[in-house]
Amino acid sequence: MNKIYMDHAATTPVYPEVLEEMNQYFTEEYGNPSSIHQGGQNAVRAIKKSRKKVADFINADNELEITFCGSGTEADNLAIKGVALALKEKGKHIITSKIEHSAVLNSCKYLEKYHDFNITYLDVDHNGFVNPKDVKEAINSDTILISIMMVNNEIGTIEPIKEIGEIAEKNNVFFHTDAVQGPGHLEIDVNKLKVNLLSLSAHKFNGPKGVGALYHQKGIKLISQISGGPQENHKRASTENVPAIVGMGKAAEITKKRMNKNNNKLEKLRDTLISGIEKNIDKVFLNGPRKNKRINNNINFSFKDISGESLLINLDMNGVAAASGSACASGTLEVSHVLKAIDLSPDLAEGSLRLTLGENNSIEDINYIIKLLPGIIQKLRNMSPKYNGKIE
Amino acid sequence: MNKIYMDHAATTPVYPEVLEEMNQYFTEEYGNPSSIHQGGQNAVRAIKKSRKKVADFINADNELEITFCGSGTEADNLAIKGVALALKEKGKHIITSKIEHSAVLNSCKYLEKYHDFNITYLDVDHNGFVNPKDVKEAINSDTILISIMMVNNEIGTIEPIKEIGEIAEKNNVFFHTDAVQGPGHLEIDVNKLKVNLLSLSAHKFNGPKGVGALYHQKGIKLISQISGGPQENHKRASTENVPAIVGMGKAAEITKKRMNKNNNKLEKLRDTLISGIEKNIDKVFLNGPRKNKRINNNINFSFKDISGESLLINLDMNGVAAASGSACASGTLEVSHVLKAIDLSPDLAEGSLRLTLGENNSIEDINYIIKLLPGIIQKLRNMSPKYNGKIE
Repeated sequence: MNKIYMDHAATTPVYPEVLEEMNQYFTEEYGNPSSIHQGGQNAVRAIKKSRKKVADFINADNELEITFCGSGTEADNLAIKGVALALKEKGKHIITSKIEHSAVLNSCKYLEKYHDFNITYLDVDHNGFVNPKDVKEAINSDTILISIMMVNNEIGTIEPIKEIGEIAEKNNVFFHTDAVQGPGHLEIDVNKLKVNLLSLSAHKFNGPKGVGALYHQKGIKLISQISGGPQENHKRASTENVPAIVGMGKAAEITKKRMNKNNNKLEKLRDTLISGIEKNIDKVFLNGPRKNKRINNNINFSFKDISGESLLINLDMNGVAAASGSACASGTLEVSHVLKAIDLSPDLAEGSLRLTLGENNSIEDINYIIKLLPGIIQKLRNMSPKYNGKIE
Repeated sequence: MNKIYMDHAATTPVYPEVLEEMNQYFTEEYGNPSSIHQGGQNAVRAIKKSRKKVADFINADNELEITFCGSGTEADNLAIKGVALALKEKGKHIITSKIEHSAVLNSCKYLEKYHDFNITYLDVDHNGFVNPKDVKEAINSDTILISIMMVNNEIGTIEPIKEIGEIAEKNNVFFHTDAVQGPGHLEIDVNKLKVNLLSLSAHKFNGPKGVGALYHQKGIKLISQISGGPQENHKRASTENVPAIVGMGKAAEITKKRMNKNNNKLEKLRDTLISGIEKNIDKVFLNGPRKNKRINNNINFSFKDISGESLLINLDMNGVAAASGSACASGTLEVSHVLKAIDLSPDLAEGSLRLTLGENNSIEDINYIIKLLPGIIQKLRNMSPKYNGKIE
């Protein structure tokens, strides 16, 4: 059976070269960077080198603008709660959107609940775009932070980061972007984009799980959210996860090198898959923008009269690993907050399928899915009371 | 040159068997546990298995009492801030000691600063012992949590955890212990010890860096400190660090098996090293208890008229990796808060040396250090104006 992994927005395999670079730091160079002896200092040097690679990856001016965290989620927490607690005397209003990752949304909710912050959750349009004009209008004298994601993880919408960055700059408000879905697909240049804080997660670009990074422009004060030792320049306590940090640096380096070549390929594969599905299946609706400002590895369709979960299981049985906006890790079957925000009917939201491509996917994979999918959809629809005309 | 690692309280090498078990989860079984497909579900199963191993390691009743975190520090943060925010309507008083790890102390300070908590920082005696009677007397109607470490990381004092646990139970106050230095040296049984929350860090017992665990007795409400997705039963958002979690489980399993054998050896090595140093060097003072209630792998001496940092560098040049209570990762040279709390004079606190043993250390290592140390001490004292009688 074919084994086709099309869930790269969830996580990616670690590049063999990345694992190779990490390996020595588990069993040989295992020193704690807080130790004065050689073993400790070797770890310090390894981290410094990796910090520089991550800084270069997003064109940060200085490697000290990078703080390593335990995940992209933790980077979002540090950005939002860290700035909020540092600036709470200045103001207690934050602007974000309804389609942010739960790391951003729930950090905001935490601030509402435990620190009396006011959060504006902006609407998005039918394709998931935040309107920069809405951001501008939401700013008031109490606003200290704007947090808008670079790319939506479900429907692939690329948000107008630069435009929002300019508005933030003009209004003297800090701007954070969760850029977790960007690397490998978009050029990320913190200066061009005018972002002050930016979150990354290594395992989304073929680095290891358990490590993320927050870019914070020089001069921005952040209150550490993990209290303890002086690691990461007092911004994140914990013994540094040396192998994972080394892996993140290496993954950034490789990803940067391969990006252009991969991107040409991914865009073609994406468009072939989109048109193939639309041609062969009826009552199918593309979620997110069609081509312009859609990330090159995201395909998200809603199929009428289908349960996303059943669809996933059927694909899995045929060797295809995919995701659905309707299913949920926690076991509940809530409709995705993103699909709700783009005003998709509950029926369509329930029948969504996300396929996210990676560099190992081939045109053969795409053709296999185009051939496989119509049969599965038809089978599931035949079992659906709605499709049988009994409800519709 | 000899290469002798005696800094096991700082970190330990990953067991080869642990790394081997982790390896497949980087490049092959890399699925995100939130994914419904097979790859995701394989990760779910791997985590479940590891959670069971960690639960067994500390004799927890149920594996769901274990929450994996990014570090021992994060586990301490979750225990202290998590309980505090959950119970803040009930009371805002916490009892801890002056010699806790900075993860505990700074979590308490965070609560003082951002949530108006009251913290009692208990004194310890000259050997670093917390007096259970002091704990009892500090409890008031506002007290919601006691946090006392199992073993002090600098001077090896084993605190009277069971006695404190009984007091906490009698007074209906939750009891947390930072047990990071215990595994591999002490039997840890959460039921016998009557602790409600307990922190572990994998890299202190030959597991990987970047993963820790918090035990929280069934029914204890914790407010997640990393906001985001529903992972770890809503107690810690972030994509699970599958390889590291698998590694922690395997390290717990091996550590449990080898503990008795290792312990006999470590105790002998420790005592040989202590008596050898005391026999061969004058003006040397043992920090922490002499034998009873001292962890079996810790040796901590203060040498009069010596700078701990110079001592470390000289040992390092001779192949011995050690630590000092006087030196500090952050580059400042503050005297250790632990040595201050046991009332050591600043002069002696500055000249401290910590040697912490692991299972790979041999009697040859011990003999080498006993032979090496007197010459280094004499050389450094000869360079010291104090020792030359000019100041003393």
